[in-house]
Amino acid sequence: MAETMLAVVKPEAKAGAEIRDVKIPSFGPSDVLVKVKLASVCGTDLHIYDWDAWAQKRIHPPLIPGHEFCGHVAAVGRDVTTVKEGDFVSAEMHVACGKCYQCRTGEAHICQYVKIIGVDADGAFAEYVRIPESNIWKIDPAIPAEYASVLDPLGNAVHTVLAGEIAARSVAVIGCGPIGLFSIAVARAVGATPVFALEINEHRRQLAQKMKADRVIDPSTEDAKAIVMEATGGVGVDVVLEMSGKTPGIRTGFNILRLGGRVSLLGIPSKPVELNFADDLIFKGATVQGINGRLMYKTWYQMQALLKAGKLDLSPVITDRIPMRDFGKGMARLKTGEASKILLYPNGVR
Amino acid sequence: MAETMLAVVKPEAKAGAEIRDVKIPSFGPSDVLVKVKLASVCGTDLHIYDWDAWAQKRIHPPLIPGHEFCGHVAAVGRDVTTVKEGDFVSAEMHVACGKCYQCRTGEAHICQYVKIIGVDADGAFAEYVRIPESNIWKIDPAIPAEYASVLDPLGNAVHTVLAGEIAARSVAVIGCGPIGLFSIAVARAVGATPVFALEINEHRRQLAQKMKADRVIDPSTEDAKAIVMEATGGVGVDVVLEMSGKTPGIRTGFNILRLGGRVSLLGIPSKPVELNFADDLIFKGATVQGINGRLMYKTWYQMQALLKAGKLDLSPVITDRIPMRDFGKGMARLKTGEASKILLYPNGVR
Amino acid sequence: MAETMLAVVKPEAKAGAEIRDVKIPSFGPSDVLVKVKLASVCGTDLHIYDWDAWAQKRIHPPLIPGHEFCGHVAAVGRDVTTVKEGDFVSAEMHVACGKCYQCRTGEAHICQYVKIIGVDADGAFAEYVRIPESNIWKIDPAIPAEYASVLDPLGNAVHTVLAGEIAARSVAVIGCGPIGLFSIAVARAVGATPVFALEINEHRRQLAQKMKADRVIDPSTEDAKAIVMEATGGVGVDVVLEMSGKTPGIRTGFNILRLGGRVSLLGIPSKPVELNFADDLIFKGATVQGINGRLMYKTWYQMQALLKAGKLDLSPVITDRIPMRDFGKGMARLKTGEASKILLYPNGVR
Amino acid sequence: MAETMLAVVKPEAKAGAEIRDVKIPSFGPSDVLVKVKLASVCGTDLHIYDWDAWAQKRIHPPLIPGHEFCGHVAAVGRDVTTVKEGDFVSAEMHVACGKCYQCRTGEAHICQYVKIIGVDADGAFAEYVRIPESNIWKIDPAIPAEYASVLDPLGNAVHTVLAGEIAARSVAVIGCGPIGLFSIAVARAVGATPVFALEINEHRRQLAQKMKADRVIDPSTEDAKAIVMEATGGVGVDVVLEMSGKTPGIRTGFNILRLGGRVSLLGIPSKPVELNFADDLIFKGATVQGINGRLMYKTWYQMQALLKAGKLDLSPVITDRIPMRDFGKGMARLKTGEASKILLYPNGVR
Repeated sequence: MAETMLAVVKPEAKAGAEIRDVKIPSFGPSDVLVKVKLASVCGTDLHIYDWDAWAQKRIHPPLIPGHEFCGHVAAVGRDVTTVKEGDFVSAEMHVACGKCYQCRTGEAHICQYVKIIGVDADGAFAEYVRIPESNIWKIDPAIPAEYASVLDPLGNAVHTVLAGEIAARSVAVIGCGPIGLFSIAVARAVGATPVFALEINEHRRQLAQKMKADRVIDPSTEDAKAIVMEATGGVGVDVVLEMSGKTPGIRTGFNILRLGGRVSLLGIPSKPVELNFADDLIFKGATVQGINGRLMYKTWYQMQALLKAGKLDLSPVITDRIPMRDFGKGMARLKTGEASKILLYPNGVR
Repeated sequence: MAETMLAVVKPEAKAGAEIRDVKIPSFGPSDVLVKVKLASVCGTDLHIYDWDAWAQKRIHPPLIPGHEFCGHVAAVGRDVTTVKEGDFVSAEMHVACGKCYQCRTGEAHICQYVKIIGVDADGAFAEYVRIPESNIWKIDPAIPAEYASVLDPLGNAVHTVLAGEIAARSVAVIGCGPIGLFSIAVARAVGATPVFALEINEHRRQLAQKMKADRVIDPSTEDAKAIVMEATGGVGVDVVLEMSGKTPGIRTGFNILRLGGRVSLLGIPSKPVELNFADDLIFKGATVQGINGRLMYKTWYQMQALLKAGKLDLSPVITDRIPMRDFGKGMARLKTGEASKILLYPNGVR
Repeated sequence: MAETMLAVVKPEAKAGAEIRDVKIPSFGPSDVLVKVKLASVCGTDLHIYDWDAWAQKRIHPPLIPGHEFCGHVAAVGRDVTTVKEGDFVSAEMHVACGKCYQCRTGEAHICQYVKIIGVDADGAFAEYVRIPESNIWKIDPAIPAEYASVLDPLGNAVHTVLAGEIAARSVAVIGCGPIGLFSIAVARAVGATPVFALEINEHRRQLAQKMKADRVIDPSTEDAKAIVMEATGGVGVDVVLEMSGKTPGIRTGFNILRLGGRVSLLGIPSKPVELNFADDLIFKGATVQGINGRLMYKTWYQMQALLKAGKLDLSPVITDRIPMRDFGKGMARLKTGEASKILLYPNGVR
Repeated sequence: MAETMLAVVKPEAKAGAEIRDVKIPSFGPSDVLVKVKLASVCGTDLHIYDWDAWAQKRIHPPLIPGHEFCGHVAAVGRDVTTVKEGDFVSAEMHVACGKCYQCRTGEAHICQYVKIIGVDADGAFAEYVRIPESNIWKIDPAIPAEYASVLDPLGNAVHTVLAGEIAARSVAVIGCGPIGLFSIAVARAVGATPVFALEINEHRRQLAQKMKADRVIDPSTEDAKAIVMEATGGVGVDVVLEMSGKTPGIRTGFNILRLGGRVSLLGIPSKPVELNFADDLIFKGATVQGINGRLMYKTWYQMQALLKAGKLDLSPVITDRIPMRDFGKGMARLKTGEASKILLYPNGVR
């Protein structure tokens, strides 16, 4: 094995990133070293690249970003028993402490002391990435490699959709970035009906259409409430999956919700949100859930089952495939709003 | 309107039934009189016909049986506001008292004083049937009439399947009579995977195949446990839907269940069941549910949503369509084990 | 029986109310006429009295307000079967339509077309009040009459406390008006521990102390977060019961909540609330519930059980007992902030 | 530190046990060595002592039994961070594998590969016991040592009581061994009412009385069903906690259960149970739960909260305190049916 590897590196506390040769990570007795086959780009990576307010507070360069990937096990520490060299794997990148109240009561996904690989430690935009055995997820052979590289955001979608009753329920997905689009597929696969998709960006609306949302709405030009109320017999939607993280999106969500409905919030607003708590939440008898990460590891088993059964067609979401060397171009492309999920290949595309 | 109508009548306390002309039912201020378009036959109707031990205890002839049907509103009482003449409807035939603990706490489907139309009062194997307005269910125009006539047993299936987590879960349906077959369709529609179907009757296994169960097993010749364990990575199924009502079926269900799994019991055993509570239930940390009827009316809304969206193909279950006059022949046909759901047409087929 | 009765009347669309002789209500076949023994005053009655913005929009004078009471059945309509003359009763004053989606799926407390007696129709600040049989609640003889007159707000408290896991959980009650105070008693009775009470009004803090909150905090002078974090080992409270309806109270609630905790909102903010959704709700993985009314009638059975068993000492909350004729004085007293629950006696105190 | 210690040893595959000097256990980097302050005796220990059918199948001598205890940390392995020498601790004795489906989805208490210290490995009837750090539970100083020695069976009780809705619900505890008696205390502490206790042994009934069950019933001489039905207005109990593990107890439980009620089964029947599934479970719409162990570690936090708050008086259950040397006498005493919880002191009582 070589001693160095290609990696995307954020070298210092400013915008941008570099492609560099760096040392292949060392690994301890409980670690797994994975040779990355392909990785995929998340909005978080753009925040880090652009060095926005959130990134300035959270990120400590130098850092290799990247927290969505799949690859083959290159080497394992001496205590590792559940995978071996050559296994095809992905990983949960939230490394929980295992000792806090949340970890000890089945809520490791909201561990008080979580560290995220690719955010708080070197990640997967590189030829190799080090992962603790506890977080490795073996990929079932029936699952395509491209899907295996997006299990992190797909897991967000699965966790959000399945956070409450969903079968035979009407659902509105608000915001059709990659996780919103995945949510459409998941909601359909588990019997939600009808599925509304709300999105102001035309490219994303087209993708929502390809994901087979029953009704795609542009809330900037259409009367979303009127459309939803008409389609639900004046009742409103049972479930809102908020993926936009924008105040207007959140307000629209509460506005089209039926009395007694559920709002699951995954999109992260960058500033405080003003909401009419009296009419939109309390009198409505609504249930609101903050959704964070993916259940460790219930969500992973659910994803695996749906993917193995071929119940999810995610192909429209994957719009771009580029060599990892072109990471900067990928960032530029993402900002156009025309791309959805961009896949990075460390060793060239295919 | 005529004064008399054709009806299937159980005239006295013995086996059999007669086709007779009887008075069209009168109706009170809160009642709806429905002209039956078609009705369908349930195993319960065969118990009544054969006058078995259960029937002898429960049924008070003369009685018009029949509790699965659809038709058009022929007339309404003066206080009725939610339907009008000509509306196409079906009905929940469990008439709850509205005043007991269960009724006042959202569990009317297990009302202490329930009366079942077609069992405790004259039912739908007739040209007309009287239904209280509270129990009428208007049929969405997107739903085919044949499906509208089987909402009662379909509702059993929907209630059973959705009585716990089901999306992305492995499921075994044990016993493939009509409700078992419906359960396969419902489980698939709400994302259960894989779906195993266990059935000893060959005709029913063929129907289970047509319903697209992932794996149809004959437990009389195949090793059900070995098959299920192999397919679930040695874990067992997440959910057992027990539709056979037979001791071997129930035992097999507990046997193939994973630790922490759910067993929902709908099939009614005719005698006590002996089970290894220690190993099969307690050490397993299993959850067992007795399922009765359908939620009033949550299950009905769920059914409606799934049917409107075209998510259920029930056509293989409907094996026979006969004139109501041939009710006796229908009973004979049911006993062959070759028929599944038999539809009765009061005014001739189609 | 006399033809007229004493009543508190809101005669026209302006502030104030009058004590008048009015006709005793007529009643239909499904109605119950109750002779009011005592009634109690809610904050809503003050809104109506003061003719604030909410009242101007919702109330259509002339109106007899009052929706908390108990009394004896004076007469029943001909179809009434569950109570008879002389029975001691209270009532759920939310009259649900019985036909909307919510009513048909066990959520009548958030009926789309609810009418509230004492708000939308003549209420209980009178010698007699008319109640539909469906809404009458017979009082168990073990329950004191004073408690029987506050079942409506006690029901709010019970519904809020029991809206999620509560046994052996730490709880913060924010805002110690009558419902907040009741919530302390209920939380203690069902095993919540410790129970924090947050309140800026000194009189109310004293009452919270009498209700045996484990720790009473004045958030205007004490560091609520520091106190709660110290007492919960740095984890935060499991459950927040928001009873203040004020933005600072709501923000404090989210602030002291543990990751994965529950916030149940009952207090009604009079204007939009600005909240840091990202940090306080989404990253926290919080669950937020809008709470409205009381479950019909599950909450009533729960209240009855707790009261029958003597598990609730509500006496500190009842601070004032006055003749109904002194209603105006009661309103003035309520505004001082020194009174909590004020009881009105139509025929003099005791 | 000495090299040997006093221990209760099951030396070979036959009835009985010996008091011996054995080597103090060695411990690995993640282990904690605990100096036992006191231990308590479980029915399981009697099965092992008597070498019954279950023991013959499960136990591999030589073995030091004992899985209920508390003590001080004597030494820790080099990777241990959460406790240090001198800390007062108890432990969850179910050591889960951490890698199976159940462990990875928050159900470690039903781990497929669980090992129980004191059953599958040397336990706590000794001066020292070795425990993996993950399973150590630090004792809050507010909790008495005697209570700290019974957290395992108390945890069974807490897990069973809190396995479903319990506040303001009527409950029947069937079988008043130590866990049944604990369940009475827990049920009362979390607002269950009324609490019925059913027990055929007079000594145990007296203890149930001391635990303040609302009604103690001897089902061998009293008509349990009539008593329960009368006390619940003909409805039946909401919750049955089955602690007897006997067929008549289980049947009685289902018999007195209300429609839609919950049966939580903890008692382990030694042979198959015959039950009328149709009438007692399915038509009833009952929910039945197999309860195993304690949630790891949610139940432990719940226990800790209840004990810290002084909400549980367990003192009547602890009937005997003896030196560990007198283990054989303890076994004899247990068989009389007069003792409930027997505490063992390795270094003499007190």
